[in-house]
Amino acid sequence: MSKRGIVIVISGPSGSGKGTVVKELRAICPTMQVSVSATTRQPREGEQNGVEYYFKTREEFEGLIERGEVLEYTQYNGNYYGTLKSEAERIISEGDDLILEIEVDGGGQIKRLMGRECVSIMLIAPSAAEQESRLRGRGTESEEVIQGRLARAKEEIKEAVNYDYIVVNESGKQTECAETILAIIKAEHCSSVRMSSYIAEYFE
Amino acid sequence: MSKRGIVIVISGPSGSGKGTVVKELRAICPTMQVSVSATTRQPREGEQNGVEYYFKTREEFEGLIERGEVLEYTQYNGNYYGTLKSEAERIISEGDDLILEIEVDGGGQIKRLMGRECVSIMLIAPSAAEQESRLRGRGTESEEVIQGRLARAKEEIKEAVNYDYIVVNESGKQTECAETILAIIKAEHCSSVRMSSYIAEYFE
Repeated sequence: MSKRGIVIVISGPSGSGKGTVVKELRAICPTMQVSVSATTRQPREGEQNGVEYYFKTREEFEGLIERGEVLEYTQYNGNYYGTLKSEAERIISEGDDLILEIEVDGGGQIKRLMGRECVSIMLIAPSAAEQESRLRGRGTESEEVIQGRLARAKEEIKEAVNYDYIVVNESGKQTECAETILAIIKAEHCSSVRMSSYIAEYFE
Repeated sequence: MSKRGIVIVISGPSGSGKGTVVKELRAICPTMQVSVSATTRQPREGEQNGVEYYFKTREEFEGLIERGEVLEYTQYNGNYYGTLKSEAERIISEGDDLILEIEVDGGGQIKRLMGRECVSIMLIAPSAAEQESRLRGRGTESEEVIQGRLARAKEEIKEAVNYDYIVVNESGKQTECAETILAIIKAEHCSSVRMSSYIAEYFE
């Protein structure tokens, strides 16, 4: 029986610790796939198309966005960077799971494009106070920047109910948090929707 | 924040190994609650109401069934035995999870009575051939009885798509199977529906 993988969207506001948790997740489970991104920047010496990036012209990239073939993207230094739907499809059709660490507003967009092929998880700090403390802890930003991030995080946490799962990332417990994410992935593979082909083939 | 527990229905056709897996689950996770059943049989010496059983008259029990207050029940030796909705509610309102090992047809009934408070898991053997081998392996039943069980199991497995999860119980791997069920329970506690009260209290 051929089993499809799942696109796992991991998101969370600034101070949720998603970067650390995703690193931990990859350390625990090295078979978890990461996708090759597409970009409009010029290839550097030695970079190969399909290895470091899929290199696209600006026109190609914008055409892909228009046709709903880019799962999420951002612009940086005048270039597009994003995840191609075809790349995600290639990975999950081989039965592997794909982890995408993205910003909160991108999660809803991917869900609309991929439906049940995608499981969205939002990480949050244990409380608003803890989240503020984490943001301030960096100690490198002005009060204005911090206030802006706090306001944005507050809006983003309201989006949590539109995610499939909400996982609390307690301080110093990124391993437990990564293990909870692995439990979610394990559970999702057993959902009756995903197991229906198994049942269909059961008596053959 | 007060978190509610979940009613975990574990079911599966004859040969799925649900009894062994539930024993394993309770061994790994002794805090998992089991409910006190209600019955119409007479209390034996030393048995106390609410400890061994909730003792009910036949009229009381049938009244409870009629009012949808019995989650699942069966008759044995002329007496009713069943799980009261009030008993399940008492356990999950204290934040504990309740495991109910029941027959396949009862799963759908509990789901209708409890909705999202209930998570239903169907265990299946890895294949129809393996399931038949397990049924025959007992070696104590006539061919007629075995054929009857196989036919019933086939019908029951078709019900699997109406369950929330389907877990394959491979031979000799009841520990892995129990761990998968624990992953499902962990994941369900993080579902955004269950976490919505956490989010609501986040900024208070």
